[in-house]
Amino acid sequence: MATDDQERCRSCFLKWMNLQHQELSELDQALTLHASMTDSNEHNLSQLAQKCIKHFQDYADMRSQLAHNDVSAFLVPSWCTNWENCMLWLGGCRPSQYIRLVYALSGLEIEAQLDEFLQGTSTTGTLGDLSSKQFDLFNILQGKTIRSEEKLTARMASLQEDVADQPIAVIAKRLSRVGEMNWEVNRALDKQEEEMAGILEEADRLRLSTLKELVGILTPKQAVDFLAAGKKLHLCVHEWGKRNDDLRHGREEIIS
Amino acid sequence: MATDDQERCRSCFLKWMNLQHQELSELDQALTLHASMTDSNEHNLSQLAQKCIKHFQDYADMRSQLAHNDVSAFLVPSWCTNWENCMLWLGGCRPSQYIRLVYALSGLEIEAQLDEFLQGTSTTGTLGDLSSKQFDLFNILQGKTIRSEEKLTARMASLQEDVADQPIAVIAKRLSRVGEMNWEVNRALDKQEEEMAGILEEADRLRLSTLKELVGILTPKQAVDFLAAGKKLHLCVHEWGKRNDDLRHGREEIIS
Repeated sequence: MATDDQERCRSCFLKWMNLQHQELSELDQALTLHASMTDSNEHNLSQLAQKCIKHFQDYADMRSQLAHNDVSAFLVPSWCTNWENCMLWLGGCRPSQYIRLVYALSGLEIEAQLDEFLQGTSTTGTLGDLSSKQFDLFNILQGKTIRSEEKLTARMASLQEDVADQPIAVIAKRLSRVGEMNWEVNRALDKQEEEMAGILEEADRLRLSTLKELVGILTPKQAVDFLAAGKKLHLCVHEWGKRNDDLRHGREEIIS
Repeated sequence: MATDDQERCRSCFLKWMNLQHQELSELDQALTLHASMTDSNEHNLSQLAQKCIKHFQDYADMRSQLAHNDVSAFLVPSWCTNWENCMLWLGGCRPSQYIRLVYALSGLEIEAQLDEFLQGTSTTGTLGDLSSKQFDLFNILQGKTIRSEEKLTARMASLQEDVADQPIAVIAKRLSRVGEMNWEVNRALDKQEEEMAGILEEADRLRLSTLKELVGILTPKQAVDFLAAGKKLHLCVHEWGKRNDDLRHGREEIIS
């Protein structure tokens, strides 16, 4: 089983999730250290953010390689819960979610700063201190990202629609037995999978380029803050999905 | 396990697939009988098409009931293969695929009629004989269906984006431990699932209304021809997915 494609894909994902736990811990430590230091340590924070991006690049490269053997394993991963898979867009999060997260965190920080102001304390340089210039850049990035997402969504839709068109629909119509396999079927399915692998690769590329551009707009401290929150959210979504399934199963057993 | 929600959903799907095999056999028989009769039997064909639509309505009603307990089981069905799930749009086929299938079948029939004409034989009243009035109505239906699909796709996208926004992203940020569950998490996840169930219900409603309108445009013979081809395609996609997985696994074992 270890050499099976599905197993390789699963192992790639599990390694990635372990790395996410490690990175979250490093990012949290860096933020704590930064808060307790009188002089800022921007350079270290910046290096940490770049390391996370580099890891993401490596993960995308590995997915791209593996996807050419089994793309559907990444688009509907069997190692994720159903709820998590419902939330996936082309095998991962929507890149526009990164920017939505920046906005949500910014709102949260502004609330916290108001409390601190009322209590006479203050922290600065967080996501609650985004400048109007940064907001403008995020709005431009958000528009651009959504347009790119729409193009990829349309490509996937077109691939799905193709099932009801030449050649697949016609092959099915002509078969003497339902589900029969022949070279025509194999060729049509291989072509579909190849196109899907291309779409997954582009979606990963869009996630990566959006993340890079976003981190480039933020200060090092804001970037580390954002990356920590993003990784925590991702890990939570994975865990919540599992616990939600367990809970539903448990609830059901009590009722039945 | 029989009372488990997942098991009920799976059983609902398996019954539906069995019914699809039965219906395909009935539709094929009716077409053979119709071809051998000198006088047409339009009324029986029409009743058969209506029976298939009624069964689809019953299936959609059952899905809608079950989805309120476990919507993700229908959106990413564990009983379908990965490839099949990649081809799904909101738990089923895209309604616009029905119209694409009519066009594909029409093209195929026109080719067949040309062969028959050259051989001096002829069959009429098939999907190769669509009138310009029928084509106009299909074009209108196709445009309307795609617009409705786009609205539902956008609703699902918005739900996916919400994960990176208030309240979910903020709940995750505030948790002391990754993946911790509390009443806030449960409430947010329940709300998400409720909205997803609503989207699935609307997608099923759109599939059904498109199918009804399409069958209304076709003559009874054309409708039975279309339904037979559609069901065969659906069953083929399911079987191909399974065989594709087996083949990949088999191939892998030989290599490793």
